[in-house]
Amino acid sequence: MAEHIVKSFDQELLELRNMIAEMGGYAEKSVLDSINALMRRDMEQAERVIALDGTIDALQRAAEERAILVIAKRQPLAQDLREIVAALRVAGDLERIGDLGKNIAKRVVAINGQMQGNKIFGGFNHMAELVLEQLKQVLDAFAQRNVEEALAVWRSDGAVDAMYTSLFRELLTYMMEDPRNIGFCTHLLFCAKNIERIGDHATNIAETVHYLVTGQSPSGERPKNDTTSTMPVEFPAVAN
Amino acid sequence: MAEHIVKSFDQELLELRNMIAEMGGYAEKSVLDSINALMRRDMEQAERVIALDGTIDALQRAAEERAILVIAKRQPLAQDLREIVAALRVAGDLERIGDLGKNIAKRVVAINGQMQGNKIFGGFNHMAELVLEQLKQVLDAFAQRNVEEALAVWRSDGAVDAMYTSLFRELLTYMMEDPRNIGFCTHLLFCAKNIERIGDHATNIAETVHYLVTGQSPSGERPKNDTTSTMPVEFPAVAN
Repeated sequence: MAEHIVKSFDQELLELRNMIAEMGGYAEKSVLDSINALMRRDMEQAERVIALDGTIDALQRAAEERAILVIAKRQPLAQDLREIVAALRVAGDLERIGDLGKNIAKRVVAINGQMQGNKIFGGFNHMAELVLEQLKQVLDAFAQRNVEEALAVWRSDGAVDAMYTSLFRELLTYMMEDPRNIGFCTHLLFCAKNIERIGDHATNIAETVHYLVTGQSPSGERPKNDTTSTMPVEFPAVAN
Repeated sequence: MAEHIVKSFDQELLELRNMIAEMGGYAEKSVLDSINALMRRDMEQAERVIALDGTIDALQRAAEERAILVIAKRQPLAQDLREIVAALRVAGDLERIGDLGKNIAKRVVAINGQMQGNKIFGGFNHMAELVLEQLKQVLDAFAQRNVEEALAVWRSDGAVDAMYTSLFRELLTYMMEDPRNIGFCTHLLFCAKNIERIGDHATNIAETVHYLVTGQSPSGERPKNDTTSTMPVEFPAVAN
């Protein structure tokens, strides 16, 4: 048991970082697999994504407990304290990403077999690919303390929002064209919103990397192109 | 400056609790005012809710920093450590509630003047009243460390979810009846989902109160009656 007692602070930090890296891997898997399940109408894959969420939640709680205990035991200051606060924040964002992946997977189960046509899925795929790329890039940036790479992710959030706005309009158009589309398009609206929010969490992680390296949040407003929550609903202007 | 140096640990905890109480007051205000703005189509009130979110976010960051510094400085153990961890978790939930209130307010601005009829608002009002009551009750339970009151909130989450499911079906029916309803009903679907998620955060806070008092999470599954994300979309069964 001696090695536990003499464990160095650096070792404890490394273990915490490894827990976050493991959570990151699961969060990426949740997003990738839920989107694939949506594209392929794969119910079994959707069920596996739903089951994975419990693992991510448990890892978050474990990372939180570990982080708090390290703070209490070691009284870290400045950079070391930032390291632990950053781990707590990233774990929170990854847990939320797991929830969003699970929600997409639940909706895949709900819309099973009810989808007509494939043209809407092109937009989904494109948006999901960009968000997955952001998530991968920002987790790399966190692992490597690379503030430039984090800022690149931070700046690209507007592109995801613009895609979401376009997808939102497209889905509303399908709903207006044929009321039989309303049920599954409603689920797809929530799926699109979930993907957009996964992008927001990637942006949060980018801000955390910036804070971790520089001690400050990025300056300036976060780039925002999601205008759907303030989009007027005049008919038929919404379908423009 | 001497009083800062000799400030007791109890004083520091009290200050942290006061910060959370202040956040709780703002979060309640955000929910109440965003719902009132929705019911009354009050654009100015909606704008004030949107502006309030920055205050809640800033308070969360301040509470987080304060909590971490107290942990680092005081090395609290057991009950005192739980006190601080609980404050961190509650601050996180209150920050999310502020975001959800802001999103409802943004949608009030978006659907300005486009709503036909009032009958859907009865269901909204009923659901919002229940969620606000839960939020008030759980913040009282947190302030008073009252685990029984917290468990009462925890058990009532199923009722909110059932109301949300009913509202979801009702909104889909309106959309199917008349495509001119699709635009504003889509915004109302997201508003209803936001209210349901505010209820989820109240339930999270109830779990935190339980953890704070007993050292453990409540046993058993959280009561869940939101079946919309797994609701099949066969037409016209969805309107049943």
